[in-house]
Amino acid sequence: MVNIKDVAKKAGVSVTTVSRVINNRGYIGKETRKKVEKAMADINYSPNQIARALQKSQSYLLGVIVPDSEHPFFAELIKNIELYAYKNNYKLLLCNSLDEAEKETNYIGMLRENRVDGIIMCSQTLDVEEYKKVDLPIVSFDRIMSNDIPYVGSDNFNGGRVATKHLVDSGCQKLLHLSGPLDLDMLPNRRSDAFKLVCMEHDIPYKIIEEEYSRDTFSFFEHHEKFIEEKVSKELLTYDGVFCSNDILAYALYIHAQKRGINVPEQLKIVGYDFNSFTRMLQKPKLTTVKQPVDRIGRELCSTLINMIEDKDGEKRNNTIVDIELIRGETT
Amino acid sequence: MVNIKDVAKKAGVSVTTVSRVINNRGYIGKETRKKVEKAMADINYSPNQIARALQKSQSYLLGVIVPDSEHPFFAELIKNIELYAYKNNYKLLLCNSLDEAEKETNYIGMLRENRVDGIIMCSQTLDVEEYKKVDLPIVSFDRIMSNDIPYVGSDNFNGGRVATKHLVDSGCQKLLHLSGPLDLDMLPNRRSDAFKLVCMEHDIPYKIIEEEYSRDTFSFFEHHEKFIEEKVSKELLTYDGVFCSNDILAYALYIHAQKRGINVPEQLKIVGYDFNSFTRMLQKPKLTTVKQPVDRIGRELCSTLINMIEDKDGEKRNNTIVDIELIRGETT
Repeated sequence: MVNIKDVAKKAGVSVTTVSRVINNRGYIGKETRKKVEKAMADINYSPNQIARALQKSQSYLLGVIVPDSEHPFFAELIKNIELYAYKNNYKLLLCNSLDEAEKETNYIGMLRENRVDGIIMCSQTLDVEEYKKVDLPIVSFDRIMSNDIPYVGSDNFNGGRVATKHLVDSGCQKLLHLSGPLDLDMLPNRRSDAFKLVCMEHDIPYKIIEEEYSRDTFSFFEHHEKFIEEKVSKELLTYDGVFCSNDILAYALYIHAQKRGINVPEQLKIVGYDFNSFTRMLQKPKLTTVKQPVDRIGRELCSTLINMIEDKDGEKRNNTIVDIELIRGETT
Repeated sequence: MVNIKDVAKKAGVSVTTVSRVINNRGYIGKETRKKVEKAMADINYSPNQIARALQKSQSYLLGVIVPDSEHPFFAELIKNIELYAYKNNYKLLLCNSLDEAEKETNYIGMLRENRVDGIIMCSQTLDVEEYKKVDLPIVSFDRIMSNDIPYVGSDNFNGGRVATKHLVDSGCQKLLHLSGPLDLDMLPNRRSDAFKLVCMEHDIPYKIIEEEYSRDTFSFFEHHEKFIEEKVSKELLTYDGVFCSNDILAYALYIHAQKRGINVPEQLKIVGYDFNSFTRMLQKPKLTTVKQPVDRIGRELCSTLINMIEDKDGEKRNNTIVDIELIRGETT
C-alpha cells in the first residue's frame, strides 16, 4: 500500500509539504499544491488513507479540564499554561467541569472527537479508572492517577509541614485545620497528613474539619463563609491557630473573626495556602500563606504533556513536585 | 465534478454519514464506512475534494482572544462563554494577547489555521482594519469594528451616567474620573463621555486622568497603585468624588486614601465599575460600583457568534447592549 512518503517522493517535495497540503495548514504555493495533488492521483493515494493521515497528524490542540476557570487559582494556572503552549505553537481548549462527573466525562469525549494531542487534567471528580481508558497523553495536576500518567503539583506535604510548624513556632497550643474533601486521593491531602504529624510531634491537640465542594453560592467567598458559620463557628474559640487549605477560606475566616471581635493574630492565628492573584491583590489583611508557584506549575504541566506528545526522551515524563514558600503576612 | 451528495447517493446513505466518514467524527459502523469508501472510489471523488469538504465542515471550535485571562473580569467572562458554548456543543480555544499587537496578529493566524468556526474578540490593540481582513464570523466585546462585526457590551454610557449622578447626588462638588486609555475607540470611552456630560449638566468642575496599559507589575493591584502614586496622588485632595473605570483601581484608590488618612466616604467618595468576582469576594470595603452582568455578556457574545456561524436568520446578529446596575457599598 502506498503511503505519504511515496506521495512526497513522487511529487519531489518533503513529507511535511504533503502533510500541509492534506491538512490545509501553513503556506503552500499553488504550483506545489498542484504537484502534490497530481502525485496523489497518480499513485492512487486513497481517500481513506488521507483520512488516516489526517487522523495521525497533530492538531496542536491541548485540552485543559479544570473545576472552575473563574477561580483565581485556576484562572492564573490556565493563563500560565496558555502562555507556555503559545510559545510552543500549541493552543488551549478550555473545559470547566464544575466538579460534575457527567460534564467531565462528556468533555473527555469531546476532546477526543476534536483530536486534541493531549489533556491536562485538573479536575477531580471521576475515578482514576476512567482516565486509564483515555488513549491520549495525559498529565494530571495534584493527583496520582496511575504509573502511566505523570503528575505535577506543589510540595503539598512540605506546605502542610511549613504552615503547621509556623503556627507552632508562633506559640499556638491547640490547632485546627480546615481541609478540602479528603475522600478522593488527591495530593493536597498530604497537607493534612503533615498537619497531623507536626501536631503529634509537638504534642499539640488538633482537629481537622473537611469542607465539601458545592457551587450553589454567589461567590467563592460565600461558599467558605457558609461552611465556617455552619461547621466551624461554634468551636472556633477553643483553638488559637488555624491552617486553611486555601486563601479565600483563610480570608473568610479572618472576616468571620473580625465580625465576632476575635483579634487576629493575637487571639487567633491564620495561615492560608495558594498566594494566588486574589491574595496578592488583597491588602487588608496581608495573609500569611503558603505560596504555590503557579507559573512554574503551569509551565511544567504544559512541557511534560508536550514532551509526551512529541515523544521526546522519557526524561521529562517524570512527576514534578515544585517547591513551596512561606509568605509571612499579618494574620500570624 | 462529483460532490459529497453524489457519494451519498451512490452509497445509499445520508450526506451527514459521508461527512462523518470523511471527518472521522461520531460513530460509524464498519459496513457503512466500507460502503462510503467504495462509493468514493467508484465515482472518483478526489483527495482534493475531500480536503475541501474537510475545510468546509465545521470544527465546532470558537476562538476567544482576551487581554489577560487571569484578570477577574475576563476570567469570569471566559467561564460564562465556555459554559454557554458547551451547552451548544462548541469548544473554546483560549488566547491571551497581553495587549501586544504582534501576539494578537499571530493568534488570529493560528485560529484560522486551526479552522475555528468563529472568533470572540475581547482584545484591543489592533486597528479595526486588521479584523476586517479576517474572513470568519467575528463578534467583538466593547468595541465597534465595522458594520459586519456585531458587538456586545454593557450600557457604558448609562454606566458612566449612573455612577457620576450618584456622586453628584451624594453631595460631591468636584469630581475626578480615572479612565482607561481613550486613544482607541472603545465603547467604555462612553463612560467618560457620560461623566463629562453629567458634570457639565450640574455645573461641577471635573478632570479626567487616563491610565495607560502596562503589564510589568506583580499584580493587577500594583499596576493601579503605581498609577495613583505617580499620576493622581498629588491633586487627589482637591476632589471629593472619584469615578474609577474598574473595581481594582477603585480598591487601590481606597487603600491609598486609607494610608494617607483620607476618610472614605466622608472626605472622598469612590465609585468603581465591574462588580466582578474579586469585588464580590472583597469584604472591606464593600465597593460602591456599577455592575456589568458578565454572565449575560458571555452568553450574548457566544450566542451571537453561533447564530452567525450556523447562519440562522439575521435576527440575533444585532449588536447587544446589556443593562448595568448601581451597587451601593461603603465607599459612597
